[in-house]
Amino acid sequence: MSAFSLSEDLEFAFRLADAAGEAILPFFRNGTAVDNKEAAAFDPVTEADRASEAAMRRLIEQHRPGDGILGEEFDTLPSRNGRGWTLDPIDGTRGFIAGTTAWTVLIAHTRDGLPRAGVIDQPHTGERFFGDGDRAGLSHRGATRTLRVSRTTRLDQALMATTDPYLFQGAEAERFAALRPQLRLVRYGMDAYAYALLAAGGVDLVVESGLKPFDVQALIPVVTGAGGLLTDWRGGPAHAGGQVVAAATPELHAAALDILAPAARRA
Amino acid sequence: MSAFSLSEDLEFAFRLADAAGEAILPFFRNGTAVDNKEAAAFDPVTEADRASEAAMRRLIEQHRPGDGILGEEFDTLPSRNGRGWTLDPIDGTRGFIAGTTAWTVLIAHTRDGLPRAGVIDQPHTGERFFGDGDRAGLSHRGATRTLRVSRTTRLDQALMATTDPYLFQGAEAERFAALRPQLRLVRYGMDAYAYALLAAGGVDLVVESGLKPFDVQALIPVVTGAGGLLTDWRGGPAHAGGQVVAAATPELHAAALDILAPAARRA
Repeated sequence: MSAFSLSEDLEFAFRLADAAGEAILPFFRNGTAVDNKEAAAFDPVTEADRASEAAMRRLIEQHRPGDGILGEEFDTLPSRNGRGWTLDPIDGTRGFIAGTTAWTVLIAHTRDGLPRAGVIDQPHTGERFFGDGDRAGLSHRGATRTLRVSRTTRLDQALMATTDPYLFQGAEAERFAALRPQLRLVRYGMDAYAYALLAAGGVDLVVESGLKPFDVQALIPVVTGAGGLLTDWRGGPAHAGGQVVAAATPELHAAALDILAPAARRA
Repeated sequence: MSAFSLSEDLEFAFRLADAAGEAILPFFRNGTAVDNKEAAAFDPVTEADRASEAAMRRLIEQHRPGDGILGEEFDTLPSRNGRGWTLDPIDGTRGFIAGTTAWTVLIAHTRDGLPRAGVIDQPHTGERFFGDGDRAGLSHRGATRTLRVSRTTRLDQALMATTDPYLFQGAEAERFAALRPQLRLVRYGMDAYAYALLAAGGVDLVVESGLKPFDVQALIPVVTGAGGLLTDWRGGPAHAGGQVVAAATPELHAAALDILAPAARRA
């Protein structure tokens, strides 16, 4: 595949991801932490979360003064120049605790509050998915390849991912129950990694609810950069979080929205 | 951690895992395959499955003549010496299709039909979990460490994994619905990888149903080697498959069986 010439923003996002990974990995699959899991005094995922976000914030404050920061763990830093960074230091904390490799670091670069570049990084495996809305790539073990969504247009040919079916409540649960049997395959438990795999062509559809802005902003430039769609359940912008649907093709997106629409609401 | 001196059987199982990985990886995240997902003529996961099992069978027939082979894809080869190999060339085919790294190659060495050594191998990340009932290890990037289950004894402190909650039907579904709210956390979508993470201390409990012998035999020496328990829902041996519960501690195992027992049946 073609070599990528990264924008300055994506290059800087890669530095942030490197710093986050270095901060997190000492806590991952840490035997001491596991043995102390029952002690409220030490929560390894919270420690790793905070170390990761603090490392990224230090770099931003040093090299991008004036940029805003919206992160999961610390107070929001307002932008003084229209540019900003939206950070989820560890997305998929349950997967992290379990020792899976489906947790990721999410980094979005925003302009005027909208995500323009995003990174979905898995420090343990070294997989780094990224995109800027026009294209998307995966760098792994020194090689970079272009990402492209699948061509799947029909629900009965699609593989859908969602993190936890019990996160849907009330009308949402009814709509999920209506959607699930129509898919060819459903896979659970991936958090943001599901959107990376949608960009990579393996997953065709992702349906979730209850996302925060820092859960979703990094995903948008990656999914759309690979040719996919990512909206809320009404088909509108999803950068504020809430109900999210990502699809490989417009046809698949429309088919999912048809079923989900009765439970769609404002974020 | 201590260096492992592997038994000849585990050393040979590692050779099988190497061969399986080489056979599978050309099909993993293969763009051509993804684009052709809708064409019935070419099913990449079936192709990879068969290539993986064929590669392992060739080595066994060459170097271990007389050993039996029970595999997912080809006819059973009866043992002529009481020893055998139980092979799942790709466990977690939905995860494989989606592009996750939670699929694995499962290899069990059996004597008189019972698994004595097992390997749970993830060729893409290079993680190789193994065990012989007395101890278990993880080899990754040239380093090997001992695996040990967590000390979690209570459901309300435990992280449970199961691949797909909708696989439970009837009485099983009722029992799962009774069990799920009692856990601290539940994680979905991991197939055999969940048992590897139980051996590694991240997952405390795994509850599944409908397993085949080749889905479960490799897991038993790994889980028990790390100090855990793996039985059917009646507390009996699970090498024949069916309903399976794996737990980090006897207390947690008993607490899960108390809830699951009303739906327990013979494999």
